Amino acid sequence: MEQEFDSGLLESAVTELSRLPGIGRKTALRLALHLLRQDKSVGEALGESIVNLCDGIKYCSKCHNISEDELCPICANPLRDHHTVCVVESVKDVMAIENTRQYQGVYHVLGGLISPIDGVGPDQLQIDSLVERIKSGGEVEEVIMALSATMEGETTGFYIYRRLGDTNVKVTQLARGLAVGNDLEYTDEITLGRSLAGRTLFSESV
Amino acid sequence: MEQEFDSGLLESAVTELSRLPGIGRKTALRLALHLLRQDKSVGEALGESIVNLCDGIKYCSKCHNISEDELCPICANPLRDHHTVCVVESVKDVMAIENTRQYQGVYHVLGGLISPIDGVGPDQLQIDSLVERIKSGGEVEEVIMALSATMEGETTGFYIYRRLGDTNVKVTQLARGLAVGNDLEYTDEITLGRSLAGRTLFSESV
Repeated sequence: MEQEFDSGLLESAVTELSRLPGIGRKTALRLALHLLRQDKSVGEALGESIVNLCDGIKYCSKCHNISEDELCPICANPLRDHHTVCVVESVKDVMAIENTRQYQGVYHVLGGLISPIDGVGPDQLQIDSLVERIKSGGEVEEVIMALSATMEGETTGFYIYRRLGDTNVKVTQLARGLAVGNDLEYTDEITLGRSLAGRTLFSESV
Repeated sequence: MEQEFDSGLLESAVTELSRLPGIGRKTALRLALHLLRQDKSVGEALGESIVNLCDGIKYCSKCHNISEDELCPICANPLRDHHTVCVVESVKDVMAIENTRQYQGVYHVLGGLISPIDGVGPDQLQIDSLVERIKSGGEVEEVIMALSATMEGETTGFYIYRRLGDTNVKVTQLARGLAVGNDLEYTDEITLGRSLAGRTLFSESV
């Protein structure tokens, strides 16, 4: 493509910014010109923090969560329950579950879900390392599938469940049911059916 | 504020990204995690291009357009018509006019418009330098006000027009009229009135 701007510096900043998801060349230009209107230090801090992020972040060798060290802070924490492994799609899901402050176990980040339509097979995900982690250590007692309630999530969960068939680890999954705050009237029938099948004793759910 | 993420690197990248206009902490996190999923070089190129942009871009000492040198490529170009100065609000307007490929003159970037409501007065804009540029050189024959057809644009244009009252420079402004492609039926009456008052010979407008 022909260079759009007189300034090569602007051209390259706009090109790099527009590689970000959801940011086109128009938005990238707006962001670049915004940075130019600010004090120099604002843009420098931004640029450096991005370089540092990409240079400094590694992945935990055990659970594949992002980490600055060999092990992530969760895997390295002896106070966490290392007998329970929560299997999630991505780093964001780890953050979401941590934010509930209800979970004391550790994680295993798959890095995606099986999706034939997007050409993602089990080999591209951290499934082998999960199976090995469970088979080798003998430390893990429960695997919680905390995957999306979508076709891809269910497929991935089922695949992992089958792969773990010859271990005696307990495999559980997140409860399906009414989202808190949702009207029963507007809940789809599949969810309603599953929430009925998985009903719990009243005292528990209060 | 309490640190939200375990990783200080992630925390600082998210904080810096969320200073950009239209980008909150959620989007900033999405962008940071996207960068982490890419090859390291993508994020490094982005970060470095931003640092280089903020370090390397200066403003043209004559027209205040962005520039990598003392003079911007337009002011430095002897083939441009230096007798005609187009007064614009921002660097983006220079780009928009350049994209029409209809203008051969030079520019003067005000860096904003007079807006009492936002506390922007004439002193914060490059108006003194415009007046001086016109009065000192004697080279400028026409000043084209290419400002938005808004209250602020009209006020700024009128203010500059008054300041240039004692020079014999010709002051013109962009034509007001129907936007090309617009239905007459849905054009507001002020625009319609001004397009009628400023009507041109039919042969010209074909």
